[in-house]
Amino acid sequence: MGSHRNGGRGGDQSGTSNGDAGGAPVDKGVDFANYFCTYAFLYHQKEMLSDRVRMDAYYNAVFKNKHHFHGQAVLDVGAGSGILAIWSAQAGARKVYAVEATSMAEHARAVVKANNLQDVVEVIEGSMEDVVLPEKVDVIISEWMGYFLLRESMFDSVICARDRWLKPTGVMYPSHATMWVAPIRTGLGDQKNNDYDSSMDDWERFTDETKNYYGVDMSVLTKPFSQEQKKYYLQTSLWNNLHPHQVIGTAASIKEIDCLTASVSDILEVNSNFSSTVTLQNTRLCGYGGWFDVQFRGRKEDPAQEEVELTTAPSVDDSTHWGQQVFLLNPPARITEGDKLNGSFSMKRSKENHRLMEVEFSCEIRQQSGELVPRLVALCSSCSPSFSITRLPLRLLVPKMHRSSSTARASEEFLVNFSPASLSLASTPLLKTAAASEDLPVYSNGNSDHATKKEIGLLHNPPGRENVIHLIPVVLFLCGFILWISSHPPKM
Amino acid sequence: MGSHRNGGRGGDQSGTSNGDAGGAPVDKGVDFANYFCTYAFLYHQKEMLSDRVRMDAYYNAVFKNKHHFHGQAVLDVGAGSGILAIWSAQAGARKVYAVEATSMAEHARAVVKANNLQDVVEVIEGSMEDVVLPEKVDVIISEWMGYFLLRESMFDSVICARDRWLKPTGVMYPSHATMWVAPIRTGLGDQKNNDYDSSMDDWERFTDETKNYYGVDMSVLTKPFSQEQKKYYLQTSLWNNLHPHQVIGTAASIKEIDCLTASVSDILEVNSNFSSTVTLQNTRLCGYGGWFDVQFRGRKEDPAQEEVELTTAPSVDDSTHWGQQVFLLNPPARITEGDKLNGSFSMKRSKENHRLMEVEFSCEIRQQSGELVPRLVALCSSCSPSFSITRLPLRLLVPKMHRSSSTARASEEFLVNFSPASLSLASTPLLKTAAASEDLPVYSNGNSDHATKKEIGLLHNPPGRENVIHLIPVVLFLCGFILWISSHPPKM
Repeated sequence: MGSHRNGGRGGDQSGTSNGDAGGAPVDKGVDFANYFCTYAFLYHQKEMLSDRVRMDAYYNAVFKNKHHFHGQAVLDVGAGSGILAIWSAQAGARKVYAVEATSMAEHARAVVKANNLQDVVEVIEGSMEDVVLPEKVDVIISEWMGYFLLRESMFDSVICARDRWLKPTGVMYPSHATMWVAPIRTGLGDQKNNDYDSSMDDWERFTDETKNYYGVDMSVLTKPFSQEQKKYYLQTSLWNNLHPHQVIGTAASIKEIDCLTASVSDILEVNSNFSSTVTLQNTRLCGYGGWFDVQFRGRKEDPAQEEVELTTAPSVDDSTHWGQQVFLLNPPARITEGDKLNGSFSMKRSKENHRLMEVEFSCEIRQQSGELVPRLVALCSSCSPSFSITRLPLRLLVPKMHRSSSTARASEEFLVNFSPASLSLASTPLLKTAAASEDLPVYSNGNSDHATKKEIGLLHNPPGRENVIHLIPVVLFLCGFILWISSHPPKM
Repeated sequence: MGSHRNGGRGGDQSGTSNGDAGGAPVDKGVDFANYFCTYAFLYHQKEMLSDRVRMDAYYNAVFKNKHHFHGQAVLDVGAGSGILAIWSAQAGARKVYAVEATSMAEHARAVVKANNLQDVVEVIEGSMEDVVLPEKVDVIISEWMGYFLLRESMFDSVICARDRWLKPTGVMYPSHATMWVAPIRTGLGDQKNNDYDSSMDDWERFTDETKNYYGVDMSVLTKPFSQEQKKYYLQTSLWNNLHPHQVIGTAASIKEIDCLTASVSDILEVNSNFSSTVTLQNTRLCGYGGWFDVQFRGRKEDPAQEEVELTTAPSVDDSTHWGQQVFLLNPPARITEGDKLNGSFSMKRSKENHRLMEVEFSCEIRQQSGELVPRLVALCSSCSPSFSITRLPLRLLVPKMHRSSSTARASEEFLVNFSPASLSLASTPLLKTAAASEDLPVYSNGNSDHATKKEIGLLHNPPGRENVIHLIPVVLFLCGFILWISSHPPKM
């Protein structure tokens, strides 16, 4: 096997710093503890490898464009278990360098050998920034996309690899990426508001008891506690698998990235003014959903024979492990078909952790009548603890530590915060806050595609209800059984 | 307010290292990212302050022993929201230094002021190792206990504080600590075995699909995946609130600590041979439970007027947020009243993270007949990811990251591993592996205390079962309603 350990690992806790991540110096030991180490679990690799949409896209991108791989040198950045490197080799690559920062490299090496490709694929354990290759490559392939595309900031490593190791005629896989936002309706906001309220009720009880039983007045902390809870429940973006019918307006692209030319400074911040037209009659604007897609188009001078796209947009059948990020608006606003939403979006890296993002959203509603509704401002930042950086499945993250913790509370990721300007909207007659229950789908004709039609049908006639009557004999039998067993009290 | 920032914070990501934690150098930036930062949430403080058993013990320890505090100088190590410092002041202390490494110090300062004690309590934000006090103190008070006492390794900071700042005549609060283990029965092992099995079934499907659809053979990873899953499901100790009736033998003390004299080297490792006598007829040894208690006895020359104890032993009414740690034995062993269990226990700090522990358990069963059953060996180490070090409530830890992750999987903390020696026990006739269902409690007279009697009653006559028959008219009405509604199909 031609594999070897190359360069320094991200894992050495040497405390060396570099400023590549844009501004904040990065402690490599902290970064490894928080980020890379979590990708070293096979369970996590399996979950990503089980994402059919993700797998199909990369598989098709490689095998429908073998001309890019045949006889060429390929670099796989962040190889994980090595599947992209193996596909590249199977598509005819002369040599594949698979660089992986974690000890997953060892497993990748085993898989490469088991698939008899050890003469083509060389697995290198090391961080991309330190690795030295014996040659420049024709293709760089990588699955670097985090939640809402840029979380994890792994694209930095791909840029570094490209600038150091891609031939001037080389091709990037994927070649392009786009970030999208769209207005949505969701019951999540109501749920989170309830959670927040009951958390504050809890706090009141707590301060009362601490004062009465233990003689200490903690009520001075009510305000900071409320802020902490608001941030947690209402100002944090949420991972969600949105149904397409929850999207209530046109999606707007807020960032386009050409992977061949983008620099780190291009992705340090994302700033965009966007507009969206509401496509649904009389509905609630509950917030924005954010997602991304990537394309495999090859290079202008050397295009793909068959272009492939991987999208993480809301979908009934093709949802991905990335899901969408939901940025809640609190309170929601009443809008209707034809209204224009003019928004601005800004995202930058968190100062505390360059792999997390801080987001600001704002939007104004221009009604069809021409009336302009006061500006809604949403601030969203990645308040999540540092260990939630990666796309790590829940189970490897969570030791159940407290019997009183409810799992229902464990679903947050980022955050959303609303200025007084938006709070005043509650008194604007046009923007009455509606309960989720009154927000039944009312589709405009233009939006009644197949999926939404199916959804309307479901609302009126839940599947299988007619089957319920067949259960009645069973229920009657059970009643009889209970009566019988109750007449035979067990011996103590 | 006499508070100020003192010394260096643990939070500076300077990457400086020290070797105090015994062996492995500690990167302060990593340590802060993994450990201290999680204690900076008010929600977390509230959860600890809501632990009534914990609060009562410290409250009574202070107010029933005011003579230790009156007119004295007190140091609170890891003050959190400052409650122990405030109680010390209320009990008459002349001066209290409240040292807190996180930004929680700011909140503590506010609480101190709100309780009008700013002239007595000085809150100092800094790590105990760096703080400089203007005088030596008469009392050191601290709530430093982690899961199973020593997890978190926070006692190191208390020792450091004591050696630097306690007067020769000073008193430690608490003064003593003891670690306990006892044989237990539990259904957790069966549950975890099922989880492991279905995880492996899942893996088989995954490798089949990856081979058939994507042309890559991943089966070479089956063994490492199985090891990873075994470690996760079966070789990790579990947080659990055991019921006293689950304890099936005498508890054995495995470590006693005199807080006035213990050194860091005394607690780097815990090694103990212990024995326990089974107190229940014909039951299953499913593993060991581990817990601790601490005592407030003052000092030999200056004893407590009223001794107070805080125990985290299994309890019906007085359970704590520490719960107990469960170390599973796989497969369980049949034992009965009078059998002797001779065990050895060894715990040392994890090389990767000095705040986590690696544990080895072994035990042999000496039956009353004198027959010696082969040695059972259990290896348990703290495989938990580094962010589970603290007693942090679930909700602040877990972003829900993957739709396929089940919350039922999110309950692990440490781990337990069984050698071939114990596996061979399955064929020992005396040690037939029993299913949980056949393991109904059979209490010896000696063990039938009030709580367990109540439990037996519950098992034979689940509460409220007799009420079920009153539901039958409702069920019949529902059946009629369903039949009626099914005869009126809704308009589409």
